[in-house]
Amino acid sequence: MTHAPLVGIIMGSKSDLQVMQGAADVLKEFGISYEIDVVSAHRTPDKMFEYAKNAHLRGIRVIIAGAGGAAHLPGMVASITPLPVVGVPVKSSNSIDGWDSVLSILQMPAGVPVATVALNGAKNAGILAAQILGQSDPVILEKIIAYKENLKAAVHQMREELKKGNA
Amino acid sequence: MTHAPLVGIIMGSKSDLQVMQGAADVLKEFGISYEIDVVSAHRTPDKMFEYAKNAHLRGIRVIIAGAGGAAHLPGMVASITPLPVVGVPVKSSNSIDGWDSVLSILQMPAGVPVATVALNGAKNAGILAAQILGQSDPVILEKIIAYKENLKAAVHQMREELKKGNA
Amino acid sequence: MTHAPLVGIIMGSKSDLQVMQGAADVLKEFGISYEIDVVSAHRTPDKMFEYAKNAHLRGIRVIIAGAGGAAHLPGMVASITPLPVVGVPVKSSNSIDGWDSVLSILQMPAGVPVATVALNGAKNAGILAAQILGQSDPVILEKIIAYKENLKAAVHQMREELKKGNA
Amino acid sequence: MTHAPLVGIIMGSKSDLQVMQGAADVLKEFGISYEIDVVSAHRTPDKMFEYAKNAHLRGIRVIIAGAGGAAHLPGMVASITPLPVVGVPVKSSNSIDGWDSVLSILQMPAGVPVATVALNGAKNAGILAAQILGQSDPVILEKIIAYKENLKAAVHQMREELKKGNA
Amino acid sequence: MTHAPLVGIIMGSKSDLQVMQGAADVLKEFGISYEIDVVSAHRTPDKMFEYAKNAHLRGIRVIIAGAGGAAHLPGMVASITPLPVVGVPVKSSNSIDGWDSVLSILQMPAGVPVATVALNGAKNAGILAAQILGQSDPVILEKIIAYKENLKAAVHQMREELKKGNA
Amino acid sequence: MTHAPLVGIIMGSKSDLQVMQGAADVLKEFGISYEIDVVSAHRTPDKMFEYAKNAHLRGIRVIIAGAGGAAHLPGMVASITPLPVVGVPVKSSNSIDGWDSVLSILQMPAGVPVATVALNGAKNAGILAAQILGQSDPVILEKIIAYKENLKAAVHQMREELKKGNA
Amino acid sequence: MTHAPLVGIIMGSKSDLQVMQGAADVLKEFGISYEIDVVSAHRTPDKMFEYAKNAHLRGIRVIIAGAGGAAHLPGMVASITPLPVVGVPVKSSNSIDGWDSVLSILQMPAGVPVATVALNGAKNAGILAAQILGQSDPVILEKIIAYKENLKAAVHQMREELKKGNA
Amino acid sequence: MTHAPLVGIIMGSKSDLQVMQGAADVLKEFGISYEIDVVSAHRTPDKMFEYAKNAHLRGIRVIIAGAGGAAHLPGMVASITPLPVVGVPVKSSNSIDGWDSVLSILQMPAGVPVATVALNGAKNAGILAAQILGQSDPVILEKIIAYKENLKAAVHQMREELKKGNA
Repeated sequence: MTHAPLVGIIMGSKSDLQVMQGAADVLKEFGISYEIDVVSAHRTPDKMFEYAKNAHLRGIRVIIAGAGGAAHLPGMVASITPLPVVGVPVKSSNSIDGWDSVLSILQMPAGVPVATVALNGAKNAGILAAQILGQSDPVILEKIIAYKENLKAAVHQMREELKKGNA
Repeated sequence: MTHAPLVGIIMGSKSDLQVMQGAADVLKEFGISYEIDVVSAHRTPDKMFEYAKNAHLRGIRVIIAGAGGAAHLPGMVASITPLPVVGVPVKSSNSIDGWDSVLSILQMPAGVPVATVALNGAKNAGILAAQILGQSDPVILEKIIAYKENLKAAVHQMREELKKGNA
Repeated sequence: MTHAPLVGIIMGSKSDLQVMQGAADVLKEFGISYEIDVVSAHRTPDKMFEYAKNAHLRGIRVIIAGAGGAAHLPGMVASITPLPVVGVPVKSSNSIDGWDSVLSILQMPAGVPVATVALNGAKNAGILAAQILGQSDPVILEKIIAYKENLKAAVHQMREELKKGNA
Repeated sequence: MTHAPLVGIIMGSKSDLQVMQGAADVLKEFGISYEIDVVSAHRTPDKMFEYAKNAHLRGIRVIIAGAGGAAHLPGMVASITPLPVVGVPVKSSNSIDGWDSVLSILQMPAGVPVATVALNGAKNAGILAAQILGQSDPVILEKIIAYKENLKAAVHQMREELKKGNA
Repeated sequence: MTHAPLVGIIMGSKSDLQVMQGAADVLKEFGISYEIDVVSAHRTPDKMFEYAKNAHLRGIRVIIAGAGGAAHLPGMVASITPLPVVGVPVKSSNSIDGWDSVLSILQMPAGVPVATVALNGAKNAGILAAQILGQSDPVILEKIIAYKENLKAAVHQMREELKKGNA
Repeated sequence: MTHAPLVGIIMGSKSDLQVMQGAADVLKEFGISYEIDVVSAHRTPDKMFEYAKNAHLRGIRVIIAGAGGAAHLPGMVASITPLPVVGVPVKSSNSIDGWDSVLSILQMPAGVPVATVALNGAKNAGILAAQILGQSDPVILEKIIAYKENLKAAVHQMREELKKGNA
Repeated sequence: MTHAPLVGIIMGSKSDLQVMQGAADVLKEFGISYEIDVVSAHRTPDKMFEYAKNAHLRGIRVIIAGAGGAAHLPGMVASITPLPVVGVPVKSSNSIDGWDSVLSILQMPAGVPVATVALNGAKNAGILAAQILGQSDPVILEKIIAYKENLKAAVHQMREELKKGNA
Repeated sequence: MTHAPLVGIIMGSKSDLQVMQGAADVLKEFGISYEIDVVSAHRTPDKMFEYAKNAHLRGIRVIIAGAGGAAHLPGMVASITPLPVVGVPVKSSNSIDGWDSVLSILQMPAGVPVATVALNGAKNAGILAAQILGQSDPVILEKIIAYKENLKAAVHQMREELKKGNA
């Protein structure tokens, strides 16, 4: 990455990377600069504080945070930063069945929102970050419009395959 | 509202207004222009399409959509608009216990995110919309920083009251 | 299919086909004409609208729609078509554990029903479509009565096997 | 009712009537003849058998069955009749929280479907019965199309009220 | 079995046998005569009625019924027979996750109990049937007391193994 | 009660009495002698042990135990007594929503069954105790058969009322 | 309180006080010094850090932390302090139904435990804190033994009342 | 172990050992003496009573108890001993999905707390036991502080690896 990152992707453990990579991939596809880091609310609370306090000063505009089980990282970062925080509930080895991850991220108290996406929905977190940037950046907005056209084309492709298979 | 609205607040039924008003109130507090409307995915699907197709062309930058039960409004709007959509699961009379509202909004497929907030979390939806605008607008960002200071002051106030009550 | 299809089977993604094929198989068994297509509420909302608006004009009499996760296809189609819509909650890769699929389809608001069957219950969706047609078609009704006799025979067969195995 | 009933509405207990009346009301609105009866799978199993065996011979074309808790009525009737059965999970005094009612009706085994609607969704059960009859009866189909137009008008009305209240 | 069976073990499908065999095994261990049969509430409702009506006339004293998903067999049999019915919720291919099986059996309305055991708890169903017989049969009661002593011995054995492994 | 009690009804707290009275009432109706006592697994573990060890020696033939939250009373008594234990999950002030009470009673390990009835289903616990006694006592068996006839009559009564109300 | 507090009771909002007072009351009963404060993980993250970093240096030996919804306070404090942290899930206005509060506190990752008690179980949190102190303080241990005797006496009292009421 | 054990680790079955070993491992790491035993509430209730009554007299200061399904061991031991009891819900073969284990341990009635940790969270149970001892033992407290530093170092290591992998 030569540009200063606009999106910060953080996760509680390196083992979350295989899920969280989905956010990085989609940002790369949109040509949006990002950084990835491991920041643990529970094991490195000081680093987490520092990260959350400084992100907007370093030029970060959206934070994507993923965690599992009693997933406190997205909400704690959101309590400190003024930036929008996108939370990705991860079904990790900490988690009973994913509900714990979802609820610990979604049910934030009034005053401190986290923009929660589906369980393991890191790809959607990347798209949402792009949309957040895109509301003030016409170039990104156009890319999102084009991305949606591609979704249609992919379904069209499926329909063709289905017809052939069914013929 | 004399300014063109930046945030569109929509809901599936007028009965959702008592929850969704929370989003409007917080946007008013931040001085961000908004509009409120009733748009039902299930009863006025054409209007919903029209709304979602045109919102970004009319200058809307963020959409907040609230619905309950099998809550399809946020996700369907997100499938059409390139703008970020904040979804508010409402515990309405359609809903068993709120889980239906949460899951129908949160669990969107890859490609079409909805930024979901807590059950009945309309106030947080308004704050999130402000943060989304704030990432590209320094004046709003400052207001969010100030808002967070006020949260601290409110807790400080509680502590004082607790000490007096406990003395 | 040489006859115009009476039942339209649609699904949000080709990956749902291995579940949804169950509906097609049972309709074939009953000698009821059908069509299968991929129609995504979230990725091809325009196609979905078009499909739902025209189905009854093309001679379709029942629509079977399958989807997973935040499963909006059955409910959105039901909001547009006057035909009965049978919804199949699919435990797809979008889904936490199937509850999301069930609730997004079952909990429709008053005014717009979806006839929901069990998780992954595509076979039952096919039988239900046959019963819906059968209430006005004595030939199909007779086939359903015969089908129920076959269910009995299958259990009788099991009993025989059990007795032999236990002897 | 002067006409022979086309729809049979049954419920496990008279206490379910305040929910199930919603199905009757909507059928009356559509001008579709119906009958209402109390038939308990658990307390009058013989009557239930008799009802389910004879309904189609008496001219009934759709059965709507409501029950709560371990709700066996819809599924047991469906196991006997060749007609389509619409199941209404009732949150009755038998029920923990409604989930028991939903699951006992929805999760029928392959071979014996029940067209399940939302918890306490008796109104939607009535509409679904009308749609089932409407697929072979153009007059009813037209009434359903008109009904959907009325849903739109009701939302339009809400929008007007909201605008006035907001002015 | 040369003696007339005292316990009737029934299940909705032969595929439930691998779970339900646990009940048979434990009865054999207690020297209590039993029979096993496939009786489906949904596919052979007439047989089910007949079975339930006649069981106590044939000398059966306890019925053990296992089923999965929308599991109606135990409750329907209980609605007809005056005998105690032990219900075994089976996590079968019909079932989402076992909760449907549990709730459809447990949540019976006032007047018609089913003695429900744990999910897949067929072994405990057999022991419970023995205890039910044992309350009026001192020989069986003595066997249950001995059985409990064996449970203790098995734990004692584990403790010895643990100590050795830990040494 | 002049006769030695055949059924022992115990509960963890006097506050459970308003639920558990249902078991006593139904036993009185059947003319079966019983005793009621407060025995707490958590607050009087010694008494609980003593009760469970001696019940069958005192002539008790069935134990009904009710408790809420982490409800250990039925299972602990079952671990000690050779008698059949009927467990009543109570939605008490200890309980989140009743699921905790159900699961702590239902999910007993292999070797130690509890005959679990519905949440707050004390009346059914009483009927089940009667059925357990009735399998070896023809007089009680006849009363159960008569009881079932009364259930039918009650439904017949409801049907009459419904018809009149509907006329 | 004239003695330096041994137990620190903190909660996320003053509205949690009516639940959390239960912990204070029981500590007072045991004669254990404590302090109560409002410390919000989400609104006063700096104060929370400071509190957690210094508590053991100020002589606090156990921390009791209560919070609701996405309840991060107990876990975040536990991530910073070396002291045992007792977590009280509160069913607050932030919470859907209490499950969110329970899971966000209970499901902590390996390395950072929170000693979780029942939903709204503040009284038990106080007793647990006393037991934690009591394991190294014979005076407190004796008080706990006496407390358990009182629990027995209270049940004995209930039994007497029940007998009288039943006579 | 040459020293008298300070921590007693017990479990309901030897099959829980693979989970519960985590508690032993962490205590060994902290240099805290412990013992491991199999004590079943349901199969060896007398041994369980004896264990719980005598533990504090033998010098045990904290008890860690693990169990699955209707997990009564931690709560029953807590009802007898004055010592703090740490409960580990185990997802064993007795358990539907782990919720039963969690709820049977967590939802203890007022008066008898169990310090519950995450599902299968035996490692955290060991750390919590160390913290409980550490509040009165400066040497152990220092070890906990050092342990937390090691957690930080492990995350730092992950960050380094991530950067290299990403370079």
